[in-house]
Amino acid sequence: MSNSYGTLFKITTFGESHGPAIGVIIDGCPAGLPVDEAFIQAELDRRKPGQSKITTQRKEDDTFRILSGVFEGTTTGTPIAMVIENQDQRSKDYSHIAEAFRPSHADFTYEAKYGIRDYRGGGRSSARETAARVAAGAIAKLLLKKSGIDVNAFVSRVGDIEAPPYTTLDLTKTEDNIVRCPDAATAEKMIALIDQVRLDRDTIGGVVTGVIRNVPVGLGEPVFDKLHAELGKAMLGINAVKGFEYGSGFAGIKLRGSQHNDEFYNDGGKIRTRTNLSGGIQGGISNGEDIYFNVAFKPVATIMQDQASVDKAGNEVTVSGKGRHDPCVVPRAVPIVEAMAALVLADFLLRSKVSKLPL
Amino acid sequence: MSNSYGTLFKITTFGESHGPAIGVIIDGCPAGLPVDEAFIQAELDRRKPGQSKITTQRKEDDTFRILSGVFEGTTTGTPIAMVIENQDQRSKDYSHIAEAFRPSHADFTYEAKYGIRDYRGGGRSSARETAARVAAGAIAKLLLKKSGIDVNAFVSRVGDIEAPPYTTLDLTKTEDNIVRCPDAATAEKMIALIDQVRLDRDTIGGVVTGVIRNVPVGLGEPVFDKLHAELGKAMLGINAVKGFEYGSGFAGIKLRGSQHNDEFYNDGGKIRTRTNLSGGIQGGISNGEDIYFNVAFKPVATIMQDQASVDKAGNEVTVSGKGRHDPCVVPRAVPIVEAMAALVLADFLLRSKVSKLPL
Amino acid sequence: MSNSYGTLFKITTFGESHGPAIGVIIDGCPAGLPVDEAFIQAELDRRKPGQSKITTQRKEDDTFRILSGVFEGTTTGTPIAMVIENQDQRSKDYSHIAEAFRPSHADFTYEAKYGIRDYRGGGRSSARETAARVAAGAIAKLLLKKSGIDVNAFVSRVGDIEAPPYTTLDLTKTEDNIVRCPDAATAEKMIALIDQVRLDRDTIGGVVTGVIRNVPVGLGEPVFDKLHAELGKAMLGINAVKGFEYGSGFAGIKLRGSQHNDEFYNDGGKIRTRTNLSGGIQGGISNGEDIYFNVAFKPVATIMQDQASVDKAGNEVTVSGKGRHDPCVVPRAVPIVEAMAALVLADFLLRSKVSKLPL
Amino acid sequence: MSNSYGTLFKITTFGESHGPAIGVIIDGCPAGLPVDEAFIQAELDRRKPGQSKITTQRKEDDTFRILSGVFEGTTTGTPIAMVIENQDQRSKDYSHIAEAFRPSHADFTYEAKYGIRDYRGGGRSSARETAARVAAGAIAKLLLKKSGIDVNAFVSRVGDIEAPPYTTLDLTKTEDNIVRCPDAATAEKMIALIDQVRLDRDTIGGVVTGVIRNVPVGLGEPVFDKLHAELGKAMLGINAVKGFEYGSGFAGIKLRGSQHNDEFYNDGGKIRTRTNLSGGIQGGISNGEDIYFNVAFKPVATIMQDQASVDKAGNEVTVSGKGRHDPCVVPRAVPIVEAMAALVLADFLLRSKVSKLPL
Repeated sequence: MSNSYGTLFKITTFGESHGPAIGVIIDGCPAGLPVDEAFIQAELDRRKPGQSKITTQRKEDDTFRILSGVFEGTTTGTPIAMVIENQDQRSKDYSHIAEAFRPSHADFTYEAKYGIRDYRGGGRSSARETAARVAAGAIAKLLLKKSGIDVNAFVSRVGDIEAPPYTTLDLTKTEDNIVRCPDAATAEKMIALIDQVRLDRDTIGGVVTGVIRNVPVGLGEPVFDKLHAELGKAMLGINAVKGFEYGSGFAGIKLRGSQHNDEFYNDGGKIRTRTNLSGGIQGGISNGEDIYFNVAFKPVATIMQDQASVDKAGNEVTVSGKGRHDPCVVPRAVPIVEAMAALVLADFLLRSKVSKLPL
Repeated sequence: MSNSYGTLFKITTFGESHGPAIGVIIDGCPAGLPVDEAFIQAELDRRKPGQSKITTQRKEDDTFRILSGVFEGTTTGTPIAMVIENQDQRSKDYSHIAEAFRPSHADFTYEAKYGIRDYRGGGRSSARETAARVAAGAIAKLLLKKSGIDVNAFVSRVGDIEAPPYTTLDLTKTEDNIVRCPDAATAEKMIALIDQVRLDRDTIGGVVTGVIRNVPVGLGEPVFDKLHAELGKAMLGINAVKGFEYGSGFAGIKLRGSQHNDEFYNDGGKIRTRTNLSGGIQGGISNGEDIYFNVAFKPVATIMQDQASVDKAGNEVTVSGKGRHDPCVVPRAVPIVEAMAALVLADFLLRSKVSKLPL
Repeated sequence: MSNSYGTLFKITTFGESHGPAIGVIIDGCPAGLPVDEAFIQAELDRRKPGQSKITTQRKEDDTFRILSGVFEGTTTGTPIAMVIENQDQRSKDYSHIAEAFRPSHADFTYEAKYGIRDYRGGGRSSARETAARVAAGAIAKLLLKKSGIDVNAFVSRVGDIEAPPYTTLDLTKTEDNIVRCPDAATAEKMIALIDQVRLDRDTIGGVVTGVIRNVPVGLGEPVFDKLHAELGKAMLGINAVKGFEYGSGFAGIKLRGSQHNDEFYNDGGKIRTRTNLSGGIQGGISNGEDIYFNVAFKPVATIMQDQASVDKAGNEVTVSGKGRHDPCVVPRAVPIVEAMAALVLADFLLRSKVSKLPL
Repeated sequence: MSNSYGTLFKITTFGESHGPAIGVIIDGCPAGLPVDEAFIQAELDRRKPGQSKITTQRKEDDTFRILSGVFEGTTTGTPIAMVIENQDQRSKDYSHIAEAFRPSHADFTYEAKYGIRDYRGGGRSSARETAARVAAGAIAKLLLKKSGIDVNAFVSRVGDIEAPPYTTLDLTKTEDNIVRCPDAATAEKMIALIDQVRLDRDTIGGVVTGVIRNVPVGLGEPVFDKLHAELGKAMLGINAVKGFEYGSGFAGIKLRGSQHNDEFYNDGGKIRTRTNLSGGIQGGISNGEDIYFNVAFKPVATIMQDQASVDKAGNEVTVSGKGRHDPCVVPRAVPIVEAMAALVLADFLLRSKVSKLPL
């Protein structure tokens, strides 16, 4: 009952990394939206493994198929089902972890909670599930574009290498390099660090920053479903995420109110704020300024080193990563962050249509 | 449709700061729970204004009344309604902001979204609404105690003054001082800082740290309703919160996987981890270790200084805080953080009862 | 978790018949709706006991109080809480049933399900809870009127006395008599029957017919939330209801398709149907014709006669109704049927705003 | 947002009759349930077209495939996705109705609501969608069997031919004939009637009766989600259903309370009722007696005769059924009624696990 996200633009994902297929149903996408299948595939390709030397070398096509809800290229208002068949199952690779619990993975907790788990590569807890979110997010993006809303994300930090503030960057350059940082000089350093970590048979964490522009005033619902609360939940639901902040975030703690408050002014008839430490959201509702937020990703748990652990019977064992894994998750996390942000915004966009009279 | 929180242990709050009353309905509390009304009142008293020199001097009793769902001191399984009448309405205080938008408040966004707002003191966006959450959270705490789960929070940071790690602190000392930091020396510095800020007619931010102990293995629901994702949403839904992190959080970014992973070991038949950078949650599910997290609060938006702004007509105006406001919100936020954490845990505790067969 | 109804226009009720108060929260009513409190009270008065010789003689004022969500007479988009204090508690009347299970009441099932129950007069299972629905339904009616939608109900049958088809009746005459049947001759017979049943210290069942006019085409959501499926659930959720049918209903079984189908025709540019056995709903979606339906109410379970039963310990006992009860529930059920129908329609009206592009 | 059903045992269906596939996701099935795929297929075979001379002669295999949630034959607690590819699409058959609205079908209302529809054979409004429900219902049945709950349905009426009361029938004989009426003599008459109707190029309605046995006391949730209210909604959500009644139903209207009440007695330590006009449900909660209910199906709208109608442009046209259609829907509706009833019961069974302490 927790594999769904959204209230009006609602998705439900399914699938294990090594089962027959993964997929998603979108229930609540309005009728009349042209569906650009090439765009959906391009989004999936941004997430897929095997893109570059700093991602896993595993090869998967992630080709999707629409089973319903689209007729002659346009949404019909009925549920949109999309399926991606699993091709590179390689079940044999995982026999060594059938009984052992990998450190900082979900093996132990799934086993304890359910009494059974598909131990092949993480099963449901595998990040492979996020491909379904990216497919759904692509349709959310198409819907948002109709309202002019623009959803972006980029890698702003890898280990201790940090990009300049987003306001100084040209976000159209995010895809210009394999680490997805729009600042070329920073990107180069990030790539070098990830490559070093990979050679060390280790992994490293990072930050993905999201920036949403041209958001109409009035999206977000008080009190529990504040815009940033939903963004936070959506981001924290992505594998390996340990933290979320928006606007001034944790750094805002040190400021005084007189420094932190965003003064309003009249910008040629439009009410705007001179600064934007609020991050485009006040009282949980968008105020028309840029929404920006940071998502912290821990280092990937699978490392190519021996680690002590226990197995189901409680015996002490040694486990080690095998096969092909990401030394750093953030480059491939960029489209996932965008997808989840788009899903949050699409949902609030629909919800905003019934806030006040006349309807 | 966004004033409810929870799936099985579900609350719905209502009320504006200057309307007749605020309150909450809990729908889904199991029957048979003894209700300690004195405990509920004590929790409300921890949140109420006028407690000390570092909180607002506004006086409100926050006396609650149970209207339903409790019979002869025990829950009956029917909805529990609790109401707190508003006493200190002082509507006159707010005439100066009826037309103006206070910087970094929700005045502008509510006006834009709804076309109407109760401008007296924030209306629905006032933190007064959180009293209803504290009342509901108190009942959630009573439910959790039956399962041995212990929910704590304390002030770990004010401005740049930071308490030592929670593992070195005695959390039973949190209530020993007015700032609610269990480390006496740090507390003294925090109080001095807040007092200085107050004299400066300004405000300051801070961090509340939550610690949940004795959590059974298996709470939390993949994939969207991960335990930490729900905690994050619940915390980000509290007024003035700008960020959330759990376990290693944002600091974990810099670590390598070999440093970050928590090795499992067999502790006399119980599977535990030697370190706890996971923060007690793996794959979104509790692993039995302490759950700990940080919640970042911005400086309170109401300051006793003139600020430039605009009014509904777009005219430039000057606004200034009047009356009695908190110079720092975190001391009073401690019971709110505990309440929301308790609500999250209570909900997952119920949800965990239907995870596997036999039921 | 089951005391809420609706998706976007969502109500949550609380309260026991002999607790301090009953009430309701509406979450999701759009901002900007003028609230006519006199109308709400008038609706409550239609439901309240003590109206006439054929209803219970119990006297209750059912005066409501709005606690939130309405500012200067207009909804603000925040939750609307309404409370009705219980006045005529008379707890002593119910001591005789504290241990015994009244036949065809909910005493036994509540006791079994929850292990505890407020035995005073039915507690939560009392029809008193429906006053909260009527208050919420009154606001839903006010919302629907803005769209021209007109919700009516009347008594169409008591025992074997049946009114003519609704299409031959003037529904503005429903309130002209105490049984709420717009056909005067039938009403007279119904009143005589109920009065006889009352003298027999017995009770009798009946049917309330609902008629909803001026419904725009397009309300209702396939596939599970069909308009008639939600109407059915809403009606079956009213105390004492045993059946629901719409359009041709159970009588349609005997017809052939060639008799039952409603042919379309072009009525001056508007597509209409020549007959309306569909009851204004096709494929779960309104087609613009009248929506009409029947709701079957069983005879009230409380009779002024001795009945065999058992108590909590399993001992055989004799129970008998005491005090003041309705010999037939349908006259007072009319406003309840209207309220629930209005809540269903208001919810679908909001949901219909996000069905297709452009939004 | 309306293609899901259930709260804890939750299904979401997708698919159009002439799209690539239909299917369902079950979210919330507990882990540890053995999945008997042959049983699921057998249930689908009971619903599929082409079974006998009194059903449509269309041939579809309705072979399903499980994509997730089942590992080595057992549920894992993750979403169970099942897909049925559409084989017999024959899109050409439907060109004649691309523009015209078939009487008493959903063509007009879908077009009006969504501005677009998949006109090939009903699209989403086709009864083909119910195959997905039957697949999900089969898993619900497997879950219920673990608790001993037994879900049955049979054809109790076709036109004016009626079977004896269910209490006099042997429900194990339902599958002994093609009309699915356990009384052989009645079945024979029903079959003759349907055959005659078919030769008349017409259709006829009927009733499916559901009987659920061995239900534990305590299932169902007051006040809006009463057990019979959910059953009613679930049944009314099935294509062509016009009415629902349970227990005494519409016939109970004529009875007096003294005739209708079910007296309790102590049956060797178990509290039971001597009669069962309550239909096994009191106050919305199961009381342990048989739950029984009737579901009224209208005559199928597609008839092999010319009918007057209009097209999208408002022109008057003549339409006529083509191809292969059911003269009476009830024989194939039996497994659908059982599936929906099983889904309702499975959901309430899970919900009942958190009703009272100790958990």
